[in-house]
Amino acid sequence: MRVDERSTDSQKSQNKIQQHKISARGSEGESSFGSLTPAQVKPGQKGMRELESFARPSRVIVDRVKPEIDGGRFPAKRFIDAPVEISAILLIDGHDHLKGRLLYRHETESRFRAIPMTSKGNDEWLASFQPKELGRYIVTVEAAIDRFDTWRSDIKKKLGAGQNVEVDLRTGVLLFEGVLNELGVSEKRLAEEKIKQMNAWIRAKANPDVNELTVLIDDPALEKALDPIYDADSITRYSRELPIQVEPKLARFSAWYEFFPRSASNEPGRHGTFRDAQARLDYVKQMGFDIVYFPPIHPIGVAFRKGRNNSLTPEANDVGSPWAIGGKEGGHKAFHPSLGTIADFERLIARARQLEIEIALDIAFQCSPDHPYVKEHPEWFKKRPDGTIQYAENPPKKYQDIYPFDFETPAWASLWKELLSVVKFWVDRGVRVFRVDNPHTKSLHFWEWCIREIRSEHPEVIFLSEAFTRPHLMAYLAKAGFSQSYTYFSWRNAKWELEQYLTELTKTELIDFFGANFWPNTPDILPEPLQTNNRAIYMQRLILAATLSSSYGIYGPAFELMEYKPRNEGSEEYLDSEKYQLRHWDLNKQGTLAPLIERINEIRKTNLPLQANRTLQFHPVSNDMILAFSKSHTLPDGEIERILVVVNLDPHHVQSGMVELPLFDWEIDPSETFQVHDLLTDARYFWTGWRNYVELNPHSLPAHIFSVRKRTRKAQDFDYFT
Amino acid sequence: MRVDERSTDSQKSQNKIQQHKISARGSEGESSFGSLTPAQVKPGQKGMRELESFARPSRVIVDRVKPEIDGGRFPAKRFIDAPVEISAILLIDGHDHLKGRLLYRHETESRFRAIPMTSKGNDEWLASFQPKELGRYIVTVEAAIDRFDTWRSDIKKKLGAGQNVEVDLRTGVLLFEGVLNELGVSEKRLAEEKIKQMNAWIRAKANPDVNELTVLIDDPALEKALDPIYDADSITRYSRELPIQVEPKLARFSAWYEFFPRSASNEPGRHGTFRDAQARLDYVKQMGFDIVYFPPIHPIGVAFRKGRNNSLTPEANDVGSPWAIGGKEGGHKAFHPSLGTIADFERLIARARQLEIEIALDIAFQCSPDHPYVKEHPEWFKKRPDGTIQYAENPPKKYQDIYPFDFETPAWASLWKELLSVVKFWVDRGVRVFRVDNPHTKSLHFWEWCIREIRSEHPEVIFLSEAFTRPHLMAYLAKAGFSQSYTYFSWRNAKWELEQYLTELTKTELIDFFGANFWPNTPDILPEPLQTNNRAIYMQRLILAATLSSSYGIYGPAFELMEYKPRNEGSEEYLDSEKYQLRHWDLNKQGTLAPLIERINEIRKTNLPLQANRTLQFHPVSNDMILAFSKSHTLPDGEIERILVVVNLDPHHVQSGMVELPLFDWEIDPSETFQVHDLLTDARYFWTGWRNYVELNPHSLPAHIFSVRKRTRKAQDFDYFT
Repeated sequence: MRVDERSTDSQKSQNKIQQHKISARGSEGESSFGSLTPAQVKPGQKGMRELESFARPSRVIVDRVKPEIDGGRFPAKRFIDAPVEISAILLIDGHDHLKGRLLYRHETESRFRAIPMTSKGNDEWLASFQPKELGRYIVTVEAAIDRFDTWRSDIKKKLGAGQNVEVDLRTGVLLFEGVLNELGVSEKRLAEEKIKQMNAWIRAKANPDVNELTVLIDDPALEKALDPIYDADSITRYSRELPIQVEPKLARFSAWYEFFPRSASNEPGRHGTFRDAQARLDYVKQMGFDIVYFPPIHPIGVAFRKGRNNSLTPEANDVGSPWAIGGKEGGHKAFHPSLGTIADFERLIARARQLEIEIALDIAFQCSPDHPYVKEHPEWFKKRPDGTIQYAENPPKKYQDIYPFDFETPAWASLWKELLSVVKFWVDRGVRVFRVDNPHTKSLHFWEWCIREIRSEHPEVIFLSEAFTRPHLMAYLAKAGFSQSYTYFSWRNAKWELEQYLTELTKTELIDFFGANFWPNTPDILPEPLQTNNRAIYMQRLILAATLSSSYGIYGPAFELMEYKPRNEGSEEYLDSEKYQLRHWDLNKQGTLAPLIERINEIRKTNLPLQANRTLQFHPVSNDMILAFSKSHTLPDGEIERILVVVNLDPHHVQSGMVELPLFDWEIDPSETFQVHDLLTDARYFWTGWRNYVELNPHSLPAHIFSVRKRTRKAQDFDYFT
Repeated sequence: MRVDERSTDSQKSQNKIQQHKISARGSEGESSFGSLTPAQVKPGQKGMRELESFARPSRVIVDRVKPEIDGGRFPAKRFIDAPVEISAILLIDGHDHLKGRLLYRHETESRFRAIPMTSKGNDEWLASFQPKELGRYIVTVEAAIDRFDTWRSDIKKKLGAGQNVEVDLRTGVLLFEGVLNELGVSEKRLAEEKIKQMNAWIRAKANPDVNELTVLIDDPALEKALDPIYDADSITRYSRELPIQVEPKLARFSAWYEFFPRSASNEPGRHGTFRDAQARLDYVKQMGFDIVYFPPIHPIGVAFRKGRNNSLTPEANDVGSPWAIGGKEGGHKAFHPSLGTIADFERLIARARQLEIEIALDIAFQCSPDHPYVKEHPEWFKKRPDGTIQYAENPPKKYQDIYPFDFETPAWASLWKELLSVVKFWVDRGVRVFRVDNPHTKSLHFWEWCIREIRSEHPEVIFLSEAFTRPHLMAYLAKAGFSQSYTYFSWRNAKWELEQYLTELTKTELIDFFGANFWPNTPDILPEPLQTNNRAIYMQRLILAATLSSSYGIYGPAFELMEYKPRNEGSEEYLDSEKYQLRHWDLNKQGTLAPLIERINEIRKTNLPLQANRTLQFHPVSNDMILAFSKSHTLPDGEIERILVVVNLDPHHVQSGMVELPLFDWEIDPSETFQVHDLLTDARYFWTGWRNYVELNPHSLPAHIFSVRKRTRKAQDFDYFT
């Protein structure tokens, strides 16, 4: 009989979760609404005549259940390791007290479980559930009049004001008698005792003693007995059932490292293999990354192959772009012959799993003219009026090495199924993370369907959207199912830009479905500020990405070795880009950023505030070259962990200023000293008051990552100095 | 064939607005969505097998149609005198161009009309329609690939880059041939000419001349011919149809004046009548009010009647509270016998209409114990366990002169109908505006139904909600149908309070449905700052109410005569309140605010920016005692009218400061002089630059109401000084 364990039938309501089903007017979109709504009664004569045919409408309103994305059309995203909090506005006319409960079920379950909601004041109610499985949950909210609590509150006030409460005692007797049949044996006995006591007072024709009454009505056992009972006359269910997608923790908190397996060979000039890539995993693990992402590993076409530095006139030994997928050796389900065999790949996956690293593959749904699909399924490609296949183009640009799929083909269903089977093929070989190339140039409906299909068997699979496009299109892909998305971070450098963009990502509804992933660089993007071998700017961008966003990634070894030369001035392409040629990297190069990366990833792993973005808050600094922000995490015991990051955005000069902190919100007494502990350097500072001084030399370290500690007076804090 | 006139069938799509109807899966809430959505295909085996049974999904997405309240559960509010603007996010993968159209119909019509949408960039599209009738409209949005525009854009770019366009010309021929059957006679002839020309170029095997091609594809006649054609293969309709409630202008822009008819007699001590009230209309008209609101005009009960100053021990000649409705003379459909007859009332209504004043009645759904309902319909009231009728109470407070209706009665349907009939009774007697007393203590569903019913025959009726309660409950009543609502303005005095509250009202979704009405006083509320005969504070509060909010009201003559004494210290009740006794008012009293009120109402009427709240913007001032804000109105020709209000919030001292204006947004060159013309005093100031000086003496006038004029250099501007 414990409420939080009791499951209820979502289809066929039981007595205690009774719904006032109102005729079969479900087609008006209000079928699950537990009472008459005027939307169901058409205005005018018809409604008038039919009024009696409706059940008596409940006075209780359930409004604004959140998170709700587009009226429940898309799921909000939550994570397996954190409670899912649902809020609702519960309303009633007058002063009756309400009770509310969250109903939730995994979509594979048919029965809802119920959790009582807690009033937060101002008509807002909250409840949380801890999802036990990945995948899609369905939630809604029910509320009813809490007749017991209303009565209890009223009789207390009246007795307190010295009014005669005989009528209220009679009301209480009726109230308790009305629920007797819904109580278990011991609870029923308890209620009967209460009735007896109240009847005795009524017979005595005198007000009960305040203390006696309090003992009777504030009895925790009574409260517990009545808690699961929902007044059938007034129960109302929210008009919609809302989906919540529960994803693995890695979807929210992840550090990505991209490298080209073909450049992983330890001998200059030799084509790298899966074995080489496997050998490099220890290096990546040492830096603390969770996900290793490979560009496509499939056969590469020869027709229209691009040469070094994107040349249209390749040389004979040029290896081509991995994104020109498909050759005589096969297509999206085949390996590039120089990389190795299925056995090599499976060993690589197994080793990665040992190291707790996920291997992410690149899903690039496009074909080189040599792809087997081109001959086997010409119906999946668009024909031009001259009979040739339509290559990719963005006029006047032509990409003749690439054939896009035609999502308007009459054979769309077989195309969708084949593309789905590609993802399934790799899932079946142990891949759990996919980086999807340009998803915004393929049917958006396809992605929603494809991701749903994959997750129906593998809800742990994560998809990263590489959609560097317009904001609404990026947001739609996130709603359609992508766990994470590349962002504009790569081009946000100034303080105001970062504050504005992060505010958009974390303080609008995007936070409920858009999983931001911050990349300082990619093989396609060497941003202008990184086109210099200034170590400070590399450190700054790394720290910003890794602390502003719970998910971030770098394209290495180019990043940690500070590969900074562009193909030409004004270009964001790398000179001698690995996209078109093999590269050899000296991982032990003097000045590599690998040790700093290791430190930062360790700080991220051991500090919960950095593992999510919702709490991000910027703080005023008296210097526009210094950015300050904090993130927090509330532990189950209510304690709050807090990280404060201060970054010098100027890669050339020492900058200093006063950082202003919201001590009131942080519950720090402005007159007392508190400690900020720099997790990068292990330095500790004692600060006092709202505004404190910071000074950062970009050439040593352009940032502080502070752990903020309130209780500075404990012995162990002072011990830090010994 | 003009697009904006062509109506389309919402039930049975015609060729040009073809919908891909997908099986009968309407119950999943996506029935009107024009293509497959993954929400319709359940994941796993079932979906896979069924994929072919769906129509080919369109690549076009229609997202975020606005205004949408709670997923379309409630209507957004708009007004008969202003265009209704609908926005949508239209998306497609890749670079195809789109076209979109707004579909709208009055709910009494069965066919949609279509209006082309305009792209505003960043995937946002807009269209507006001018509602021709009051009542509820239904809107949705359709979009499709604009294959003509895509082709036109591509071929231009290719030709511009010197590429061979033969294939593109062939594509063009196919494109034009594909739509021939959908064109009218002359449009068809035009298209055939174009085809002929393109075929000639194709035969010539040479690129056409750029100018010749431009003449062919940029032909306005061609564009006009193709504009109404929506590509059936790609058309997508938004998943929901959204309601828009079109209300009369008066619902948005109104000045209310409340007075007690029984105190309108011109002889002290005599009970006022409808004739007296009628005589007073000229006085009210002179001040420029639109709506005169009367407290209840019904018979008043004698049981538990309250005496002067809310005394529980009335004297024999005490008149009682008008809100204790119902006596032996009748109830909610009867007149208080001292006020007059139905003929008197009808003359009053007729005179008011002559003066373009609406008479607002008070709907207070509660009964005195003497109300005829109590005997005739005991089933509408709640019985206490001792058999007596439950009077109103908010423990420990008792209101024994009031019986509330029991909205949980099994006879709820007959109760609802009777209450509806009360409103209808007064509507039938010419009343078009109702102020509803405490709607938050009656079933919220009842109001939604009742207002819908009234408006099904009389969409011009306006309801003002007197719900001084918690914010979510007030907002819900607005969603449920109330045109306007009293607000917390009465208690917002400091600059930060006003800025915060107005930002909530105008910059959140409340602006779409919550019609704020600002009252500096009511018979129930004499706010503490007004409990002094300081003229400055009365002027200040009046100007704030009338300019911050497009709808405002005062309770007179108490307000303009600065009746300032509370019943007792700490109370917001008036001493000798008209609620419990007759009062006689000397309208010619020295110092009446009537002339100022007249001036302000005239300014409101002649300045469109003050007739709505959506554009409200606050401006920084270097003095926290000075509030500055502006409102704007865009005329059909694109010209913007702008009003800037600057108020000294200190009722005691002269305050001065620098007002900072967003000249960039206002398109005023900071180096040039512009004029601000004070409409209160007719003074004109020439300002230059972002920051300008203001100084306000509260004892003369605590505010400027400036008209901001950009073009100060015209002769007529300088003439102002002559």
